[in-house]
Amino acid sequence: MTTPPPARVGDPAGAIDTPALVIDLDAFDRNLDRMAAFAKETGMRVRPHAKTHKSPMVAWLQIERGAVGQCCQKVAEAEILVDAGISDVLVSNQVVGEAKVARLAALARRARISVCADDPLQVDAYAAAARRFGVEIHVLVEIDVGAARCGVAPGAPAVDLARRIAEADGLTFDGVQAYHGSAQHIRGFLERGKAIELAGESLAMTVDALAAAGLECRTIGGAGTGSFRFETGSGLWNELQPGSYCFMDADYARNLGEDGSEGLEFEHALFVASTVMSASAPGRAVVDAGHKAASVDSGLPTVWQRRDTDYVSASDEHGKLSLSAAASPLGLGDRVWLVPGHVDPTVNLHDWYVGVRGGLDDGHVESVWPVAARGALT
Amino acid sequence: MTTPPPARVGDPAGAIDTPALVIDLDAFDRNLDRMAAFAKETGMRVRPHAKTHKSPMVAWLQIERGAVGQCCQKVAEAEILVDAGISDVLVSNQVVGEAKVARLAALARRARISVCADDPLQVDAYAAAARRFGVEIHVLVEIDVGAARCGVAPGAPAVDLARRIAEADGLTFDGVQAYHGSAQHIRGFLERGKAIELAGESLAMTVDALAAAGLECRTIGGAGTGSFRFETGSGLWNELQPGSYCFMDADYARNLGEDGSEGLEFEHALFVASTVMSASAPGRAVVDAGHKAASVDSGLPTVWQRRDTDYVSASDEHGKLSLSAAASPLGLGDRVWLVPGHVDPTVNLHDWYVGVRGGLDDGHVESVWPVAARGALT
Repeated sequence: MTTPPPARVGDPAGAIDTPALVIDLDAFDRNLDRMAAFAKETGMRVRPHAKTHKSPMVAWLQIERGAVGQCCQKVAEAEILVDAGISDVLVSNQVVGEAKVARLAALARRARISVCADDPLQVDAYAAAARRFGVEIHVLVEIDVGAARCGVAPGAPAVDLARRIAEADGLTFDGVQAYHGSAQHIRGFLERGKAIELAGESLAMTVDALAAAGLECRTIGGAGTGSFRFETGSGLWNELQPGSYCFMDADYARNLGEDGSEGLEFEHALFVASTVMSASAPGRAVVDAGHKAASVDSGLPTVWQRRDTDYVSASDEHGKLSLSAAASPLGLGDRVWLVPGHVDPTVNLHDWYVGVRGGLDDGHVESVWPVAARGALT
Repeated sequence: MTTPPPARVGDPAGAIDTPALVIDLDAFDRNLDRMAAFAKETGMRVRPHAKTHKSPMVAWLQIERGAVGQCCQKVAEAEILVDAGISDVLVSNQVVGEAKVARLAALARRARISVCADDPLQVDAYAAAARRFGVEIHVLVEIDVGAARCGVAPGAPAVDLARRIAEADGLTFDGVQAYHGSAQHIRGFLERGKAIELAGESLAMTVDALAAAGLECRTIGGAGTGSFRFETGSGLWNELQPGSYCFMDADYARNLGEDGSEGLEFEHALFVASTVMSASAPGRAVVDAGHKAASVDSGLPTVWQRRDTDYVSASDEHGKLSLSAAASPLGLGDRVWLVPGHVDPTVNLHDWYVGVRGGLDDGHVESVWPVAARGALT
């Protein structure tokens, strides 16, 4: 059920079959280097998020550059990372259900495994499984720092849960998970900073209360591609969990910088290669990439380096482009590079990454990597 | 890279790991029977759309009930259907690119293959490949009947293209594809009917012009789950291509019937099984199914048979539920059944269909089918 790769190593980039998920390896390497340099400068631990890339190959390239390990959201993702030899994995999520928790504990025989909790029932289940498998599981208390999704309330409820973890045989209390997901996409720089400032207040209060209870946090984790400079600047967090920075997407491109301008701190390095399959009316072209090739949950794809051409609507297998009168025309068979609206669910639609070196149009295929954790839902 | 199945045949339904794509087989069978009865009553050919189900197993169940074959949108889907022994497949789309067209022609050695065209260049490419492979490819002229996506203009342009097909060695002119995609989701019954009435005017004018040119249409195809009664009633179409009717989704549930009420002609038969993984605040529960388990391009999933509980936001791996004060509470580990917003891209996120007989809550797993054409993008 894995589809054939849309290209072979050595092919010219123009020979990639479409739709295909393509990495501009030059931009991608620069993105990895930039985050690694930031970590070195600031002394922050970086644990990139594999929910974005779902690829042990990408994970290893991050770890080679100093990342302390990986985080992911699902046990099935963690299994694939550990199978690829990655020795430090955080499931930055709650794991619920006997079978899933058993799989988590089994992984802890082969790697350092951490997981989040926001409920005593989870803690008890983790502990029982850890004892059954004879392992130690590291547990972070997730606190709700403003996203109103998962997480206990800051302060006393977090201390109660941390104590339960610390006292459980088989578990190690590792610290606090304080991730503000919805803040990543607040467009204004100051407003985004403000959201993280408020998150920091909840976090500081919680860490103080934990310390007063004799519970030390080895890890204070959170932050994403949209906010990691704020968490770093606060001096409160010590571990960053950015995912999208390696690839970027059209949604992140709408975040504003300090001077109010759009401007990415990292480069677009991930594209959906598409082909014009119909051009039956003036000013219109239809490409072969719709919902099943690029997720639209955070907006439509944008068209890369074609002025005056917009991707105006998606259906399952079609993307409709609108060309202004000034746009250079598009004909049947022409290649169009799309920047996905949202990287993570787009990656999850594809079986293969095609890595291109030397430019999307004139370069060649240097790598074909499986999206190994594609569909790893459980 | 195919994930392990989330259940085994014989398991109680409650043991299905989540998130999982689950068919209520009782409702599904009734949907298949209902469409088959309609076809028998009206004498219409039904060629269900495999873009929805991506499963040769579902295709065969449809064909056993009288469907004349399958349609699909991609050559890669057609390959999987033909590999499973299905002998009559329409790629209801334009196929562009030498490699793809060669694959299409190769399939025509093993099955009756039809495809659409809206450009002379496509016709020439189909013909060259057909001659190279020594096969006959059946070609439909796609006309734009209102969706402003693919398709030539009705009337003379369609006749010109049909003539080119009819005159090409290796091709057989098969008729007209007149599908109005966007009309499927027009909410009002009368407005939906009006859109198909207008489509019918374009179609009738085209068929008359073709007849005047001595070009006979064996197939006049189109129609979807939202409109097939209108195309049938018009007396103009002879082949229906509905996809969603076998499963239905939350988006189709918003279409209104003749009396203005919401009311599905077919039953919800496809669900995403999810589990409550966090319930850390009153009135809120978080399930383990987000963007990667249920596509939100046509709206969020709805919660099945739980009054006063709404799925209010999706992130990649989380779905946030809001419970009114009157709702029965949800606790950690509880099962929640979701009706996907849009069936087709949701199916494409999963490797397996788990078929349940005897009710979602109390039944048992009767089948575990691969979503064989999941990810078949090319």
